Amino acid sequence: MSARAKAVVLVSGGLDSTTVLAMARARGFACYTLSFDYGQRHRAELAAAERVSAALGDVEHKVVTLNLDSIGGSALTDLSIAVPEQETEGIPVTYVPARNTVFLSIALGWAEVLGAQDIFIGVNAVDYSGYPDCRPQFIDAFEAMANLATREGVEGRKISVHAPLIDLGKGEIIRAGLELGVDYALTVSCYQATATGLACGRCDSCRLRRAGFEQAGVADPTRYV
Amino acid sequence: MSARAKAVVLVSGGLDSTTVLAMARARGFACYTLSFDYGQRHRAELAAAERVSAALGDVEHKVVTLNLDSIGGSALTDLSIAVPEQETEGIPVTYVPARNTVFLSIALGWAEVLGAQDIFIGVNAVDYSGYPDCRPQFIDAFEAMANLATREGVEGRKISVHAPLIDLGKGEIIRAGLELGVDYALTVSCYQATATGLACGRCDSCRLRRAGFEQAGVADPTRYV
Repeated sequence: MSARAKAVVLVSGGLDSTTVLAMARARGFACYTLSFDYGQRHRAELAAAERVSAALGDVEHKVVTLNLDSIGGSALTDLSIAVPEQETEGIPVTYVPARNTVFLSIALGWAEVLGAQDIFIGVNAVDYSGYPDCRPQFIDAFEAMANLATREGVEGRKISVHAPLIDLGKGEIIRAGLELGVDYALTVSCYQATATGLACGRCDSCRLRRAGFEQAGVADPTRYV
Repeated sequence: MSARAKAVVLVSGGLDSTTVLAMARARGFACYTLSFDYGQRHRAELAAAERVSAALGDVEHKVVTLNLDSIGGSALTDLSIAVPEQETEGIPVTYVPARNTVFLSIALGWAEVLGAQDIFIGVNAVDYSGYPDCRPQFIDAFEAMANLATREGVEGRKISVHAPLIDLGKGEIIRAGLELGVDYALTVSCYQATATGLACGRCDSCRLRRAGFEQAGVADPTRYV
């Protein structure tokens, strides 16, 4: 790369997307980080997203507001649906309908405005909790659609959607991030984190995260309630 | 259909999407209409969207707020970029990056919540002003992606994205709508309509609309400034 190529990186403030941001930066991209205020109950993740973006040298961090809670259908945006604290069968109630599709679509719009051809997302098919939009075939289909949806596609500049964690286990993700200097104490993964970012230690996301630090053989820096 | 099947219909308040809503209703769908407050300069279209949804018997009309203006890049959301009043070459500045992708994605999320398998959008490849996301190959690619993105897709209930206007000229659209009883006086198409819905008569959208009424051989009910 001569002048640094730009990439849009979806950053939630959690462990996975923070690792992806470190990976995109290590590959030399000028990173434009994008977060969403979509009515999620775990508001502490927005503060974490801003923190990790700054810590990992983003060029610009943008928060797009979007009232996904108005369509409902998920424990993450509907306070009347409880976050489960045991493993469940099938697609769990924490699944937010079409969330990754919506987030990638807005990332695609920003990429077009920036002239960026690369979009990074921290989806993961191993510890993916049964969410349909975390599977590799979804990412491939989104990329194909993106190349037909945009000015870039029409003019022959290929848009790539990178999901570098897709085949990694949580322990491998953490090891990769630590090698790139990620400070996981800055991140918040809990679905029901307190306003100051304390984790419940019991939801799906907390269980996967805690197991990841065990697998990686490193101390868990998470602050629990 | 036994109990009426549900459909999510994207409704902007303009001529095309209003016709699509009438078509979806004529096909027997229980219509859930979706509009966006995305920072567009033509605010009168939101009032028109509500008006036409009620007039055409929607079950529910929802407005999702989304600050697409924060990513910029279009004359429709950036007041510092003028709306062109002559025909231009290539993709015009009124193109909103990835707009249809974003709108369809949110429609997909609502469809999942509702248990609807049908989404209607008023894109049109004839008078499409050079927007990449109005082409049939884009709609097909979006539908393929949608079937991998969602619970419905995973569980084998196919999601269909209908674009019934895709091959029609503006005159044909108007004739089809009039046969279904659409009152086009309720609709607003102008990119720079006044707050009360008066059209400029000079932008791309006004020119296509006015020519459409001429092609259809009917009086133009548009109120111009």
